[in-house]
Amino acid sequence: MENPKPQLLSVRVRERNQFLPLIMDGKRASTTAGKPIKCRAAIARKAGEPLVIEEVIVAPPNHHEVRIKIICTSLCHTDVTFWKLEHPPAIFPIILGHEAVGVVESVGEGVHEVVEGDTVIPIFLADCGECKDCLSAKSNLCTNFPPRPSHGMQRDETSRFTDINGDTLYHFLNVSSFTEYTVIDIAHVTKINPTIPANRACLLSCGVSTGVGAAWKTAKVEAGTTVAIFGLGAIGLAVAEGARLCGAKRIIGIDVNQDKCEIGKKFGVTDFVNSSNIGDKTLSQIIIEMTDGGADYCFECVGLTSLVNEAYASCRKGWGKTVMVGIDHPGAMLTLSSFEILYSGKSLMGSFFGGLKPKSDIHLLEKLYLDKELKLDEFVTHEVNFDDINKAFDLLLEGKSLRCVIYMNK
Amino acid sequence: MENPKPQLLSVRVRERNQFLPLIMDGKRASTTAGKPIKCRAAIARKAGEPLVIEEVIVAPPNHHEVRIKIICTSLCHTDVTFWKLEHPPAIFPIILGHEAVGVVESVGEGVHEVVEGDTVIPIFLADCGECKDCLSAKSNLCTNFPPRPSHGMQRDETSRFTDINGDTLYHFLNVSSFTEYTVIDIAHVTKINPTIPANRACLLSCGVSTGVGAAWKTAKVEAGTTVAIFGLGAIGLAVAEGARLCGAKRIIGIDVNQDKCEIGKKFGVTDFVNSSNIGDKTLSQIIIEMTDGGADYCFECVGLTSLVNEAYASCRKGWGKTVMVGIDHPGAMLTLSSFEILYSGKSLMGSFFGGLKPKSDIHLLEKLYLDKELKLDEFVTHEVNFDDINKAFDLLLEGKSLRCVIYMNK
Ligand SMILES: [Zn+2]
Ligand SMILES: [Zn+2]
Ligand SMILES: [Zn+2]
Ligand SMILES: [Zn+2]
Repeated sequence: MENPKPQLLSVRVRERNQFLPLIMDGKRASTTAGKPIKCRAAIARKAGEPLVIEEVIVAPPNHHEVRIKIICTSLCHTDVTFWKLEHPPAIFPIILGHEAVGVVESVGEGVHEVVEGDTVIPIFLADCGECKDCLSAKSNLCTNFPPRPSHGMQRDETSRFTDINGDTLYHFLNVSSFTEYTVIDIAHVTKINPTIPANRACLLSCGVSTGVGAAWKTAKVEAGTTVAIFGLGAIGLAVAEGARLCGAKRIIGIDVNQDKCEIGKKFGVTDFVNSSNIGDKTLSQIIIEMTDGGADYCFECVGLTSLVNEAYASCRKGWGKTVMVGIDHPGAMLTLSSFEILYSGKSLMGSFFGGLKPKSDIHLLEKLYLDKELKLDEFVTHEVNFDDINKAFDLLLEGKSLRCVIYMNK
Repeated sequence: MENPKPQLLSVRVRERNQFLPLIMDGKRASTTAGKPIKCRAAIARKAGEPLVIEEVIVAPPNHHEVRIKIICTSLCHTDVTFWKLEHPPAIFPIILGHEAVGVVESVGEGVHEVVEGDTVIPIFLADCGECKDCLSAKSNLCTNFPPRPSHGMQRDETSRFTDINGDTLYHFLNVSSFTEYTVIDIAHVTKINPTIPANRACLLSCGVSTGVGAAWKTAKVEAGTTVAIFGLGAIGLAVAEGARLCGAKRIIGIDVNQDKCEIGKKFGVTDFVNSSNIGDKTLSQIIIEMTDGGADYCFECVGLTSLVNEAYASCRKGWGKTVMVGIDHPGAMLTLSSFEILYSGKSLMGSFFGGLKPKSDIHLLEKLYLDKELKLDEFVTHEVNFDDINKAFDLLLEGKSLRCVIYMNK
């Protein structure tokens, strides 16, 4: 199949913010269904080394699987974490990427939920629609397909990717979006409204949804309250955006980077604390002073367990909620005083994918964006074409980007 | 003043369950107001030694204080904990007791909430009615009078008790109910319906309210759910009673004492696990098997931090709530896997006095009892007269009693 050279789009979004409409490509779909597709993919062959764009073979979708033409993908910290990781659960060669939007090219047997040409976003978290959790409004943790370090398809652990030499390439987080075509289990595919621009839709696939959901679904932020957010990366800013949409009166952002003070304002952050400049005080002392007793909700968005302790201490006694959003390394342990938990009236909870149910809650975010209530544009600080995918890594590693959108197919 | 010899009432409540009506004693009140009262009190003079009933002088109430004639008091584990404690915050000589009901004998200046003759229960937790917490429906942790180891009156740290030699006797938990008369800050006094029998009303002062509140107010147990309770002492059984009232479908009680299997049934416990007889399995493995994934709510009612970990592990992923009710020693630390908190969708919270607001929520429990919905009678396994107060300690230490009511004045 042909591989059209994408147009160069590596511009700051604030300078020239383009919306890329998603267009159904029914003709191509019908000619490739059932056959392997040869296309281009960015392969991580070794930890920390630049991705290499190569030709790969993408097998047709099996039962319950969907082959998707990726239109846009954006780079999330989790991609970078696994790209850098030298030891298991890292594995190479792998096709990274998990925040994306695409169009269904063809579907395997037993797939009735989407058809060729549907616009979809892949989501690393499953929603099988059948288990106790997927049927419950309270859980987003599918029992049939629990999150686990899988390097193939959910149901049979095999890969749909081979390189030009016939060697297997591994899947990543049930998605693998750094490729022009990918194969994803239907449990990880959510159909979306095709009118939402592709370079915005991809953000709903992971980071922004996680942050907005943490405020909206996990913490259930109430109007008029005070929120403190530890770490103003894309996820922390998305928590601010979620809190703003919930009607929070005061949103305190905390970060080591002074630039986040201005950036935060776009997402509703009303107060900024530069945590590298607090002298002898602890962060919780500062937050308690600023709020006359503590914030109603505290969100840890860095992934440092010690910061969870500060967040917990920064919460208002009597009703404060501390929500863990950031992911620390697997062995990290959180230690809290038993007495303090008992006497504080505070609660502690984790938020995985913002507590969102992949196949239902995403639609509200989509609608909020189309109604111009939810901000997505402001998260996209950079856009590059597929050939420049390594530039997206550089920008994130240098702390220059919130989200860099990569155009995969035009 | 006279000290009528109380009638011996040391009978099992199931054999002869008497209701003692609370009768206003306006005549005596009017003759003693403003003067010291000489009466009998049970004094703890040394850690672990039997209480000694002696004559004491109870000073008149100061500003914002109320002098109360105690009618009934019941023995709570916290009395025993502090009676046994050899080191600070323990202090001697002290008048223990904090679960009680009485009648207002006289009030100090500035007290408008109650008048002589009102039936009241003292509550160790303050409700000042003025601070941000007391004005909020969400908190029961008064900011003006925080819980702290105080040995005198809240506002000036002085004692209202002296022994016959003029030596100071310390107050306990803002209550000190093992005396015919006591002085309590109005922030710790709740007026109740005088038609509720005294040997039932006292239970609302601490233990039963704490347990019922933990299910009702802290966890907000939903109808049709499954609850697991670790430890079936009076508080654990009160959690069961609260869960039953909330409509829980299945209530699993866990205790080392097999007798609790039968006792639990009275309070709605549907399943019993003898934790001293589980072989190689962990408690959480057993609860997860029994519930096909975990209980919706888990309550730790023993005060063992390690059991909080089992409770947390026993909770249903996706939505399980773990509530700490039991009090471990002050230095105890709870350690949880950061990863598990993040990925489990579970929440953890403490429950202090069941999350109840002393001056408002108690009235609902009172009404539920009078409407024959809330069980109180079943908690009273023993009743003794004041002279036999040490027998109440023996019964609790031997694990024979849930609540032993002590008749102070008849
Ligand atoms: Zn991500
Ligand atoms: Zn499922
Ligand atoms: Zn108590
Ligand atoms: Zn208060």
